[in-house]
Amino acid sequence: MHCDTLWTNARLATMAGQEGGLGLVEDGLIAAREGLIVYAGPAADAPAFTATTQTDCDGRWITPGLIDCHTHLVFGGNRSGEFEMRLAGASYEDIARADGGIVSTMKATRAASEDELVAAARPRLDALIAEGVTTIEIKSGYGLDLESEVALLRAARRLGAARGVRVTTTFLGAHALPPEYTGDADGYIDLVCDQMLPRVAEEGLADAVDAFCEGIGFSLEQTARVFEAAARHSLPVKLHAEQLSNLHGAALAARHGALSADHLEHLDKAGIAAMAQSGTVATLLPGAFYFCRETKLPPVEALRVAGVPIALATDCNPGTSPLTSLLLTLNMGATLFRLTVPECLAAVTRNAARALGLAHRVGTLAPGKACDLAIWDIERPADLVYRMGFNPLHARIWSGK
Amino acid sequence: MHCDTLWTNARLATMAGQEGGLGLVEDGLIAAREGLIVYAGPAADAPAFTATTQTDCDGRWITPGLIDCHTHLVFGGNRSGEFEMRLAGASYEDIARADGGIVSTMKATRAASEDELVAAARPRLDALIAEGVTTIEIKSGYGLDLESEVALLRAARRLGAARGVRVTTTFLGAHALPPEYTGDADGYIDLVCDQMLPRVAEEGLADAVDAFCEGIGFSLEQTARVFEAAARHSLPVKLHAEQLSNLHGAALAARHGALSADHLEHLDKAGIAAMAQSGTVATLLPGAFYFCRETKLPPVEALRVAGVPIALATDCNPGTSPLTSLLLTLNMGATLFRLTVPECLAAVTRNAARALGLAHRVGTLAPGKACDLAIWDIERPADLVYRMGFNPLHARIWSGK
Ligand SMILES: [Zn+2]
Ligand SMILES: [Zn+2]
Repeated sequence: MHCDTLWTNARLATMAGQEGGLGLVEDGLIAAREGLIVYAGPAADAPAFTATTQTDCDGRWITPGLIDCHTHLVFGGNRSGEFEMRLAGASYEDIARADGGIVSTMKATRAASEDELVAAARPRLDALIAEGVTTIEIKSGYGLDLESEVALLRAARRLGAARGVRVTTTFLGAHALPPEYTGDADGYIDLVCDQMLPRVAEEGLADAVDAFCEGIGFSLEQTARVFEAAARHSLPVKLHAEQLSNLHGAALAARHGALSADHLEHLDKAGIAAMAQSGTVATLLPGAFYFCRETKLPPVEALRVAGVPIALATDCNPGTSPLTSLLLTLNMGATLFRLTVPECLAAVTRNAARALGLAHRVGTLAPGKACDLAIWDIERPADLVYRMGFNPLHARIWSGK
Repeated sequence: MHCDTLWTNARLATMAGQEGGLGLVEDGLIAAREGLIVYAGPAADAPAFTATTQTDCDGRWITPGLIDCHTHLVFGGNRSGEFEMRLAGASYEDIARADGGIVSTMKATRAASEDELVAAARPRLDALIAEGVTTIEIKSGYGLDLESEVALLRAARRLGAARGVRVTTTFLGAHALPPEYTGDADGYIDLVCDQMLPRVAEEGLADAVDAFCEGIGFSLEQTARVFEAAARHSLPVKLHAEQLSNLHGAALAARHGALSADHLEHLDKAGIAAMAQSGTVATLLPGAFYFCRETKLPPVEALRVAGVPIALATDCNPGTSPLTSLLLTLNMGATLFRLTVPECLAAVTRNAARALGLAHRVGTLAPGKACDLAIWDIERPADLVYRMGFNPLHARIWSGK
């Protein structure tokens, strides 16, 4: 059989096959044609391939390209000054008075041109790509008005085109209440549902719709309105839920067939049961947990027992997780949340794909999937989770190249 | 005045001048001759320089090259398998039965040749160098017999020669009790004091002497014997102290004029007072704190009030801190230990130099110091502390080159 590219003499963690396993193959081979995997498995079982290009991997490990399924990568401004003030003892009031907080990011994002948003996000994207990320989700939610949200999502799409990386975009208009709507959250949700979402859908700028369901965000009722609007445009939903308190957002998300519910530190049993039933992925965000010095852990053991798939993501954002390392996120998932090594690796491959509705296209090394590979200089897959601040990526293949 | 190299149009954080400050210079200039800084300060105040090479920094920030003042960088083997087992629920007994723990590192270190030790450590060193590290301390302590300790220290010296980096070595024979001395810690301390230390000193393989004073390490009395032996060879001392319990090691170290006492989670007031009086640096190791999920914080505020200089280091080691990012260490120092931005930056420059007895040679941008520079693509120094998993190093200069 002829293929475009062949990788031989590799050890594979296909992440395919039985749940919970890494799908290990000691003497493995991967063949790709037209950007898709046509074979990934033991060399001994492979058909006889001829190939245009052939790479001897010298026994290196190959995993699926990594997937960062929850980021707020595109924004204007820089909140390091606020971070410095807070460490020096400034109160939240001091910071608000100094124009800090999410409003500062909103102002800087509104003030930035689309080109500037792309330029600001590119180094962050490149840091992730350098660690083998091949698919990334990018949320809007710092524009908070029609034109700024549209510009942010366009910038996100352009980042995907400029770099060899699969970008999925999520419309998160209901991220925070912009100052011009103070005291009128319902009015802002009207804007989100009746103007922003139709425009974003019409321009094809979003692959999913998200909201921040929280005491300091939007209520369960407002979130439900956003979800209903998403359904009218046939867009799948996700939710920032149960991060700081339990508003029962995950159960609402599950009822709406959400792809994922994210954060989940305060998730309760009913929420877990609802997620298990709907097949909603639990996306845990240890970077925000760490950076905010949270102490309430997400209910990992209960999620495990209920069979809820667990994903991990950077939550890259300027306020609560200025994190651009998915490998470090793996270590945090293990160290802080006690996920096992196979759980951590599934969390940034197979389950992260599912959290984006892309399980049919990426996330495992299997025939028919995109040929997105990360080739590593490691002794064993656990090295990817164990080390901190070390990048053993040898090569990264995106869509077969 | 003629110099070899001139960096112009730079913003400087000289880390020199008043305690607690960053020594900021907006329109700065650095001039170097024969590897040493001859001027670092405002361009407006500089003498008229001619230079063989001149670099326009385009307004980028320059800090002193970073200093990692506590590492166990050279060792054999890989403990990621043990990490994976532990996450999967293995007990310490299971791991001991599977030959895990420090003994596994000792065995792998003893089995490795000097060349193999150098080769294994090189990627770890390169990861640190890539973040602007120009001086690094490397401890022995995984050989635990005469020849293996010597080989480890030679490997450390060779790493410095192979890369443009200043390596200082510390003899840590009293790191752990090797199995052949089980039940006879005093006998092992005899070996350390009477055979290892004289040989190491004679070959010029160590710049300092360290010990692990802890219930699971060595007693205060044994530590004192090591310190006395170090004094006989005119070597300065350091100490792993008060990490898991309070044995009053820091006070002992201070009485011996130690360069630093390290870890210090359980340090008490008397220890702080003793360190303040002796000028001993408090080297905090947030990577180990994080990785071991410790909850007892070092007494940062009391150290601050007492005026004890604080350093931060990776503690890079396979068992409790497989960390090769000094930038991530900065973030952990701020996030976990609540050090301020100026404290974090002093902790890996000025104070880290002092912890190595090198305050006269490195750690600030000042005339007469080695021209070790880190040139950064950042908006402000706080960016180095705020971000996680991002490396904004633009260029690194070591000894003027
Ligand atoms: Zn988020
Ligand atoms: Zn140590």
